[in-house]
Amino acid sequence: MIKVALDAMGGDHAPKAIVEGAILAAKEAQGKYGIVLTGPEDVIKAELASFGYDGTGMEIHHAPDVVTMEDSPTVVLKQKQNSGLFACVALQKAGKVQASISAGNSGGMMAACLMVLGRVGSMPRPAIACDVPSFGRNITLLDCGANVDEKATALVHFGICGSIYAETMLGIKNPKVGLLNMGEEEKKGTEVLQEAHQLLKQAPINFIGNVEGRDIMLGETDVIVTGGYTGNVVLKLMEGFYEYHVKTFGKIAGPAGDRFHEDWDYSNRGGAMLLGLKGTGLITHGRANAKVIKNAVDLAFRLANNQVAEKIADKLSQVA
Amino acid sequence: MIKVALDAMGGDHAPKAIVEGAILAAKEAQGKYGIVLTGPEDVIKAELASFGYDGTGMEIHHAPDVVTMEDSPTVVLKQKQNSGLFACVALQKAGKVQASISAGNSGGMMAACLMVLGRVGSMPRPAIACDVPSFGRNITLLDCGANVDEKATALVHFGICGSIYAETMLGIKNPKVGLLNMGEEEKKGTEVLQEAHQLLKQAPINFIGNVEGRDIMLGETDVIVTGGYTGNVVLKLMEGFYEYHVKTFGKIAGPAGDRFHEDWDYSNRGGAMLLGLKGTGLITHGRANAKVIKNAVDLAFRLANNQVAEKIADKLSQVA
Repeated sequence: MIKVALDAMGGDHAPKAIVEGAILAAKEAQGKYGIVLTGPEDVIKAELASFGYDGTGMEIHHAPDVVTMEDSPTVVLKQKQNSGLFACVALQKAGKVQASISAGNSGGMMAACLMVLGRVGSMPRPAIACDVPSFGRNITLLDCGANVDEKATALVHFGICGSIYAETMLGIKNPKVGLLNMGEEEKKGTEVLQEAHQLLKQAPINFIGNVEGRDIMLGETDVIVTGGYTGNVVLKLMEGFYEYHVKTFGKIAGPAGDRFHEDWDYSNRGGAMLLGLKGTGLITHGRANAKVIKNAVDLAFRLANNQVAEKIADKLSQVA
Repeated sequence: MIKVALDAMGGDHAPKAIVEGAILAAKEAQGKYGIVLTGPEDVIKAELASFGYDGTGMEIHHAPDVVTMEDSPTVVLKQKQNSGLFACVALQKAGKVQASISAGNSGGMMAACLMVLGRVGSMPRPAIACDVPSFGRNITLLDCGANVDEKATALVHFGICGSIYAETMLGIKNPKVGLLNMGEEEKKGTEVLQEAHQLLKQAPINFIGNVEGRDIMLGETDVIVTGGYTGNVVLKLMEGFYEYHVKTFGKIAGPAGDRFHEDWDYSNRGGAMLLGLKGTGLITHGRANAKVIKNAVDLAFRLANNQVAEKIADKLSQVA
């Protein structure tokens, strides 16, 4: 049976929101998969008790160290191996769980996944893939900030990762993959983008060519590929739009407003996927509430159950 | 007296909207500055006549060639020197006007400004600077797409250009200049961004450090500096967001809605400034209507009258 390990101590509302989210997930899963909470056993037990949960479908892995938001990735890797964050990844490496989630220190979680699980393909780090709102639907954007100064081959690997995710998890046949650029023409953009454009045309994906910033909002592209810097700016600008909107208009009533707030409120989102790992890793928003954690656990299970990481590794081994 | 040259044939609604905008500007200017319309004399005369305008404050410079949106910059420079687009720049080089505007082929206009007027500083091309909506105000973003693969020194020059613009034209004392990055820490981002961060700390501007995508929407930074690729993506994403908003909610009534539509409807915006030229050049949106053209002419006059280009050249000569 697939098990998902969850860092009980990560995020602004840990451990309460994490444990509550795990309980919601376990109740919904009804034994379809297991959950392992990692962190100080007494703390986790007390939280479970406070919710009156009998522990069905849930295990605890004792890891007493706590990673703070200030801890550097090096500190996490060298001094905090007995933390909930590190342990949820180490359990996966040991084959005891099949997916790992933290809402805590994202640099530390990235480092742990990279060092403990390892990566596939030519990306220096696994890409952070996020589903972002677009017109009438969500689309997948990557890399949202794991990598910098990528080579063209890394952008191709992002495209393959996103394509497999969209096909396997979202059920989109032959997902349309666009390269985020500053013009439609092949010769637009940085040298790396121009080279990536040519490589993407040869890649085993449905590459539709360059797309522009405006296209992110049109809902016509399934996967949009860019480097970690620009992807991170786009993701955070979209978070900023939403905050601006709420400050300007408050919560807009009616179906269009409900849909808008559901789609744009990033604290609702399950998490950012680390694609290109030898395994399944998720980073969720530090502000994640119990519902978000529940969604993240479910997403992690489905990623593992659908063998997304294995499919990506297989496809990446076929290209340069 | 300062004169502004305006390509009568550029833009989706040319020549009608251009000529109408010029008339609105001339009426408002009341002789404070002159306007020179460049393009086929008979066409411009017929448009002026159709508005019943007596020609006060307006001259026509006959330039019969027409630049299409498909013309490459090379074609513009080599074969279309007798066009309204090229002529409005050539007149500035000859000292007959002090600013040049086109709503037409922006690559052609950039090339004409670069080749005919020349550039200052270490930017391969002048930066495209745009005022963009932020919370409670506009802020200035550059480069919005003229440059690619910039060196760190170019980003410093963008910061100086933006700072002088904000101080001179917007009356902001000691404008806060931020470097768009993927984290607040100095060591975040690409190699170029990390180097630019260190150089910006030494530059003769009020550098406040790194800002993130979310900060673009907070209204707390006066000038945000980024490379042309990311700046272009941000600008076009903001245009896309406005379109998404209108498709989702239509026009929202009330003061907050009025303000939102006024700020975000990019077809209202006067134009993108080319900063770092030996002269004054503006590119306006192809969809520009007469009101936008009027605003662009007024902006061009004020840029020239305030000697923004000269102040930028002077400051850039003081740094590496």
